[in-house]
Amino acid sequence: MGKGKRASSVYRVAAEIMCHKGYGATSMNDIAEAAGLTKAGIYHYIRGKEDLLFEIMTYAMDNVERGIIAPAREVADAEERLRTIVERHTRSVIEGVGAVTIVLEEMTALTPAHRRLITARKRAYLDFIRQTLQQLASEGKLRNINPTAGAFGMLGMILWISRWYRRDGKITPRKALNDYLEMTMHALIKTELKASGK
Amino acid sequence: MGKGKRASSVYRVAAEIMCHKGYGATSMNDIAEAAGLTKAGIYHYIRGKEDLLFEIMTYAMDNVERGIIAPAREVADAEERLRTIVERHTRSVIEGVGAVTIVLEEMTALTPAHRRLITARKRAYLDFIRQTLQQLASEGKLRNINPTAGAFGMLGMILWISRWYRRDGKITPRKALNDYLEMTMHALIKTELKASGK
Repeated sequence: MGKGKRASSVYRVAAEIMCHKGYGATSMNDIAEAAGLTKAGIYHYIRGKEDLLFEIMTYAMDNVERGIIAPAREVADAEERLRTIVERHTRSVIEGVGAVTIVLEEMTALTPAHRRLITARKRAYLDFIRQTLQQLASEGKLRNINPTAGAFGMLGMILWISRWYRRDGKITPRKALNDYLEMTMHALIKTELKASGK
Repeated sequence: MGKGKRASSVYRVAAEIMCHKGYGATSMNDIAEAAGLTKAGIYHYIRGKEDLLFEIMTYAMDNVERGIIAPAREVADAEERLRTIVERHTRSVIEGVGAVTIVLEEMTALTPAHRRLITARKRAYLDFIRQTLQQLASEGKLRNINPTAGAFGMLGMILWISRWYRRDGKITPRKALNDYLEMTMHALIKTELKASGK
């Protein structure tokens, strides 16, 4: 399947069905129907369900690399870089790739070769966050926490948004984004230093 | 299956296999083998895979109610109650119910009646946390965050431990527990007030 807008919309629809029905219980028929394709039409592009799962995960990691890592890399200051990562990742989950985020966890359904590829891309993102926290530690700004625990703590908070947040619920996207920035930055950074003027 | 030590050990073993292979790909045979039971032996206790999944979730929510909610209810001060919840929940994930925690998400595989029961118990736990945060807000101690976002932010952080933490890795259980307490309390509570002596 091509990498255009059409493809990303099929990936989102497919991810939503997989989340709703469970990956195991979702058939190619279900996906074709929801995406408005005939069964023959969808098989023209995709070899099967595992192939589609891998394509969705590739799309998700492309978004992480282009939408989060690349712009954050341009930010020299570690605290501002962390804020950039949190803001961009939180926004992407809130603004509609929630189901795609959940499907990223279906690692056991991938072939071993595909699993290795996705795992390596996830690890690169984790390492990028961890290096940012290590820089903050060397500047005396990180709380007294292990940078690996900090990186996973932050990721857990953000990724979990996909499990509960509804854009049409009581909490607006803007409020949710602000609250997650507030929680994450205070969780990781010694914000008291600033508050007391030290 | 009875509620004894034997049952909880079968639940843990079964949860680990389900996490490793994926729920859909796990057979009753796999579980019987890992639990050291014959296939006939396991069917003597359990009607099937969905029944076992429900039993594991019931076991998990029993642990939440007895091990977290009941003792935390005894703590009148909201900040101390929050600390009790975080400490007890984090410890339970770190100390070995990680796979059980992950299996708690397999809601789509339950029958509708079972799903309603488990959802109601999860919601009661969420409400308990949210009420604690609302009390903190009324005392002026909660950060400027929506209590629902705060409750899910905290739960996401703690539940995600099951995805990455290994007790035989570089971070000791004690250090991990301390780091998660540090992150969670600072994420939610205006700790600057204390630091600056206000």
